[in-house]
Amino acid sequence: MSKALINKLCIVGVGLIGGSLARALKKAGAVNTVVGAGRDETHLEKARTLGVIDEWQTDIGEAVQGCDMVVLAVPLGAMQQVFAQIAPHIADDMIITDVGSAKASVVEAARAVFGSLPATLVPGHPIAGTEKSGVEASFAELFQNRRIIITPLETSEQSAVQKVEYMWQACGAEVVHTSIEHHDEVLAATSHLPHMLAYALVDTLARMDARTEIFSYAAGGFRDFTRIASSDPDMWHDICLANRDALLKMLHRFTADLQQLSKAIENNDSDYLKETFARAKKARDEFCDG
Amino acid sequence: MSKALINKLCIVGVGLIGGSLARALKKAGAVNTVVGAGRDETHLEKARTLGVIDEWQTDIGEAVQGCDMVVLAVPLGAMQQVFAQIAPHIADDMIITDVGSAKASVVEAARAVFGSLPATLVPGHPIAGTEKSGVEASFAELFQNRRIIITPLETSEQSAVQKVEYMWQACGAEVVHTSIEHHDEVLAATSHLPHMLAYALVDTLARMDARTEIFSYAAGGFRDFTRIASSDPDMWHDICLANRDALLKMLHRFTADLQQLSKAIENNDSDYLKETFARAKKARDEFCDG
Repeated sequence: MSKALINKLCIVGVGLIGGSLARALKKAGAVNTVVGAGRDETHLEKARTLGVIDEWQTDIGEAVQGCDMVVLAVPLGAMQQVFAQIAPHIADDMIITDVGSAKASVVEAARAVFGSLPATLVPGHPIAGTEKSGVEASFAELFQNRRIIITPLETSEQSAVQKVEYMWQACGAEVVHTSIEHHDEVLAATSHLPHMLAYALVDTLARMDARTEIFSYAAGGFRDFTRIASSDPDMWHDICLANRDALLKMLHRFTADLQQLSKAIENNDSDYLKETFARAKKARDEFCDG
Repeated sequence: MSKALINKLCIVGVGLIGGSLARALKKAGAVNTVVGAGRDETHLEKARTLGVIDEWQTDIGEAVQGCDMVVLAVPLGAMQQVFAQIAPHIADDMIITDVGSAKASVVEAARAVFGSLPATLVPGHPIAGTEKSGVEASFAELFQNRRIIITPLETSEQSAVQKVEYMWQACGAEVVHTSIEHHDEVLAATSHLPHMLAYALVDTLARMDARTEIFSYAAGGFRDFTRIASSDPDMWHDICLANRDALLKMLHRFTADLQQLSKAIENNDSDYLKETFARAKKARDEFCDG
């Protein structure tokens, strides 16, 4: 067997992210064996048939046996349970990371299970994804040129941090480090708040009497704007509650700004409207191309 | 000269929409001569050089002379002034239509100028566009398979309505009729409100201390969600005020829903969150593919 970066990798939760990670590492020749773990046999067997994983286990404790890397790619609400399941099986050289969209809650879950945090635990979060979910939607290129945020803990061993970095770099991603608090604030602003707005908008319209007609007149701009409202509802439920405080802070800030915009429209305040729209356009044009 | 649907077409305002209409009609062989009208000579000459229009005039009264079709493709705030400029030059067989995103305000503007509305006036609105603006962004396929809403007036002659329909059909569009009130409500919901949310979100983030970092972590979902915030600020200023009442109604409804969602997050109300997200996802998946 060739010397790959990872000899035996366990992915707990073989969905869009977990599946894409397995595909990317296999494509890069960076892993020898991928073990999938989860609750649904049919789903795991499909992942195996697709060639995403090599073998699978529904017993997560057994799945991690002999693995040098374990990636938790389950919804945030399931993290603590998974930590509890792997806890008795952790070896000194078994690196543990995750892909959760909120980081403080993952560390809390780990602390609740382990008491003092394992030196091989390195939380992470790939800033990548689509509105689709499930292993069928996974693809090897998902992380290419995307950023992966890792939030090493005070307890994290340098060698563990490095191996997690190498893993994501092997997928074509750029790895950056931030604090947990900063990660959770930035993600509340750029991802969690926009998802709330998209869900809320589609739901507002879906509950109107003219809903069928309203949606039939939706053009390209609306399609783009609401794409993230097709994301997995249960996953987003977990994210909302896991990053509750940071998200609420952003929701309140945005709601206040939106109310001021409404006031400006009510008052025919042309200057306010033109300035706000121009400032937003300038910011959008500066940071995004297209 | 061959017998085209339109012999001489005047487009007042040769931007994304006006320019794309000219291109589409030329490509379809549905027009003999296109006259561009506007205020900016450099801009009009560029449109001529690009082959979008055949000739141009900065005197709008002169531009419409001898035209059998006049399309007002100027910002909503300029409609009344343009109506006033063409009023002395209107011939009995000169059909007048527009592409404004709010229809009640266009009819008000016409009424303010004409007193009793011309029988050849047929307001319209193509449900098409991009976040770009200007004649450089125009293309002949913009209206293909898109809907054009026309809102014929009680005063509109049947032959005028028909010619406007034929014009848009020649561009590959599907023409539907609605009432002005209904148009303005539906557009407030599907277009004007989403634009307000995108502008407000980008502006909220752009005014945060961590703005540079926040934007640097924005992924694909954010890019799609905020694309419409790159739209023309002055045009959207006009739309806000032109469709003020319908837009305010939608803004208030949405804000109330968003506040309820915030409350649910605050109260860890899992059922509310899961149900709302699931309902939104279902609606989005039903009416949009991708």
